[in-house]
Amino acid sequence: MAKDTSETRTDLEHVLAALEAGTVRQVQRLVGALHPAETAHLLEALPTAQRRIVFDLVPEGDQGEVLVELTDDVRASLVEGMEASKLVAASEDLDLDDLADFVGGLPEAVTAQVLHSLSQRDRDRLNAVLSYPEDSAGGIMNPETIAVRADVTLEVVMRYLRMLAYLPDKTAAIFVVDRNDRYMGALHVSRLLTRDPASVVGDVMDEDFPPIPASMTDTEVAREFKDRDLVAAPVVDERGQLIGQITVDDVVDVISEQADEDIRRLAGLAEEDDMFAPVFTSARRRAVWLGINVATAFLAASVVGAFRPTLDQVVVLAVLMPVVASMGGIAGNQVVTLMVRGLALGRIEDSNARWLLAKEIGVALINGTGWAVVAALGTRLFTDDWVVGAIVGAALVVNLLTAAITGFAVPLALTKLRIDPALAGTVVLTTVTDCVGFAAFLSLGTLFLT
Amino acid sequence: MAKDTSETRTDLEHVLAALEAGTVRQVQRLVGALHPAETAHLLEALPTAQRRIVFDLVPEGDQGEVLVELTDDVRASLVEGMEASKLVAASEDLDLDDLADFVGGLPEAVTAQVLHSLSQRDRDRLNAVLSYPEDSAGGIMNPETIAVRADVTLEVVMRYLRMLAYLPDKTAAIFVVDRNDRYMGALHVSRLLTRDPASVVGDVMDEDFPPIPASMTDTEVAREFKDRDLVAAPVVDERGQLIGQITVDDVVDVISEQADEDIRRLAGLAEEDDMFAPVFTSARRRAVWLGINVATAFLAASVVGAFRPTLDQVVVLAVLMPVVASMGGIAGNQVVTLMVRGLALGRIEDSNARWLLAKEIGVALINGTGWAVVAALGTRLFTDDWVVGAIVGAALVVNLLTAAITGFAVPLALTKLRIDPALAGTVVLTTVTDCVGFAAFLSLGTLFLT
Repeated sequence: MAKDTSETRTDLEHVLAALEAGTVRQVQRLVGALHPAETAHLLEALPTAQRRIVFDLVPEGDQGEVLVELTDDVRASLVEGMEASKLVAASEDLDLDDLADFVGGLPEAVTAQVLHSLSQRDRDRLNAVLSYPEDSAGGIMNPETIAVRADVTLEVVMRYLRMLAYLPDKTAAIFVVDRNDRYMGALHVSRLLTRDPASVVGDVMDEDFPPIPASMTDTEVAREFKDRDLVAAPVVDERGQLIGQITVDDVVDVISEQADEDIRRLAGLAEEDDMFAPVFTSARRRAVWLGINVATAFLAASVVGAFRPTLDQVVVLAVLMPVVASMGGIAGNQVVTLMVRGLALGRIEDSNARWLLAKEIGVALINGTGWAVVAALGTRLFTDDWVVGAIVGAALVVNLLTAAITGFAVPLALTKLRIDPALAGTVVLTTVTDCVGFAAFLSLGTLFLT
Repeated sequence: MAKDTSETRTDLEHVLAALEAGTVRQVQRLVGALHPAETAHLLEALPTAQRRIVFDLVPEGDQGEVLVELTDDVRASLVEGMEASKLVAASEDLDLDDLADFVGGLPEAVTAQVLHSLSQRDRDRLNAVLSYPEDSAGGIMNPETIAVRADVTLEVVMRYLRMLAYLPDKTAAIFVVDRNDRYMGALHVSRLLTRDPASVVGDVMDEDFPPIPASMTDTEVAREFKDRDLVAAPVVDERGQLIGQITVDDVVDVISEQADEDIRRLAGLAEEDDMFAPVFTSARRRAVWLGINVATAFLAASVVGAFRPTLDQVVVLAVLMPVVASMGGIAGNQVVTLMVRGLALGRIEDSNARWLLAKEIGVALINGTGWAVVAALGTRLFTDDWVVGAIVGAALVVNLLTAAITGFAVPLALTKLRIDPALAGTVVLTTVTDCVGFAAFLSLGTLFLT
């Protein structure tokens, strides 16, 4: 049932209270009443120790489905501690589709056992999925599809379906293939239901419904689904043979995971960081970024250090240094974020890049000059010195221009080098804006104040 | 057709080249051959001036659909310059569903004209959608649904559908209502096709398929769809009457827009910033954040200013100041990002917040101490002075702890105050880490070095 959001106690509160009270049976009852997706949601909001306990109380028949619903990181942490036999049992009630996702993260020995427990036909199909990269159309597809021939009538199709007596609940189309299993078009269920039963599939099918090549990346698949408002699409191998289908719920996962990834990476969280992972795990994961920052911060400090004689003479420069650097960081971060998303959404190409660069330089000049005047006035109030104000202003313009050019060029260059621009972009950017900001400000100071 | 990504020239390159050559007819031919979603994609990657020209070359019958596919911001910029008659014409070929999105952004006079051009029935339905907030289930629903009664047989339903002779291509379920139009359950098309035609709808329908209340927010709708892997869901009003349905393609848009919003806001881009907007528009939108930053940067500078006598004596402190502040900023940003996403995904509640705070403090102590040692050693190399190194290290620990607590508390507090934590979180955080970082470092410096 849909949850009533106004209920006074959330599932999480109930479970935490029951765990605290040690009433295991109550937790079991609570968890048993939840839908697997709800259980997954609950587990994701629990600290690791409690998570393990609660997961063990999930009814065995549901464990597989719950695991499939979890984010990769949380799933991995639970799978780690499970016995092989339990993992095989958990995999038993899964669709081939979910099973493919699931075994991807299992130890090889367990995967072999799971494969062994399947029928030859299912094993072949599962192996087909596993032979493609996890982030490709072949890797996310469901190898179970229903295919019909073009030369039969709708009536025959309907009889066939009734004979099968099973069609997944979300089916909106079945696919039409020739006798070599090559994909020809889609037969929308809506047409099957509304057209004359005597008509031939070939005349009713949607030929303008292109298949997705198994080698397409999941990002491109997601874009196809979004652009074409698809609910399901056929997947074909390089010979054009129908080998599976992708349904929109898989794509929804891809879209939200990718956006989440970009968000995390822009903040310097390289690996998926489960909020509720143990302290040491999280500390280790975040340490990398802090370590890189220690190094780049000392680089920036050494730029400042080169101007020690100046700082010795004009200490007010030390006071105002952070203003220049932080403005560059903020402005550059805005540009990097727009570039990263523009690249992710496929909106930036060589043909419009030059225009974009010109635009970003324009924005930087406008905001640079505008805020330079404000900062100069602010400095004047602060220091009673017009020269220092002018230097702050000039350094700001230089640094905002640097931020615009760096923010534009770094993500593009990283993408060409096949380095994730979200992850590396911000660190390169802040290093550049810090160093250039300090250098510009302090060399102007050296020129005019010493 | 799916585009061949290996083709040597992209649509964008073709169009830009043709625009440059001034061969309008060629642009027209190129654009005429594209699917509306592809045209929208192309328009989004064009600078505003060219965008207007290309849009005017889109076949009139497609303009409405193209507008619907565009992001809000780009759509608004195009609609602004269009004549009322053209807008009414563009709205003519739209589904009610898309029409509802579309008229939401039109001037009132045009909306009235559009409504006037509809049949009474469609007008009532459209008004029903418009009466709900844009970001609610009622606002994103499609008021066109097909409903049947529970007491008829599947055969009757199939005859009825054949008589209607129309069912949207993506239909996976039709809905069952009682004689007061109250929603009772879903009749999956798959079951309609596979079950005995003599069976009664009431026996075949899925009663465990809860409807979505029209007042539910689109974020909650998206979560329901993700959790329940839905393709379509019925929408009911407060009396339980079926008033429309939401299909997954609308939800996909909600999910990607929300993630995009979080990304933008974390980078201080409050309004939707169309990358290809004119320079002045973008400059104005980004100026706000820079302005706030000027103010907070001067706040931080005034903290530094309070220690001028110390800086006068020990200038090396000025050199190392940025190290302490930037480490706090990075660490705090990681925490804010995790909190913002955790809150957006509904994983943080009062009941697990205390655990999270304890965890973040733990992470900060581990990373703080670890990198403090490294930074102290680095400082020793840099300055040949152990005391300064120890001060850097101690200030780092203090600042990382501050960053953890602030990064945890600020998004929670902002959410309770109904202020967007993504937007305001980072600015509050950096202000705090800058000020505390400088104060801790310089007061330790004052204590031990002067």
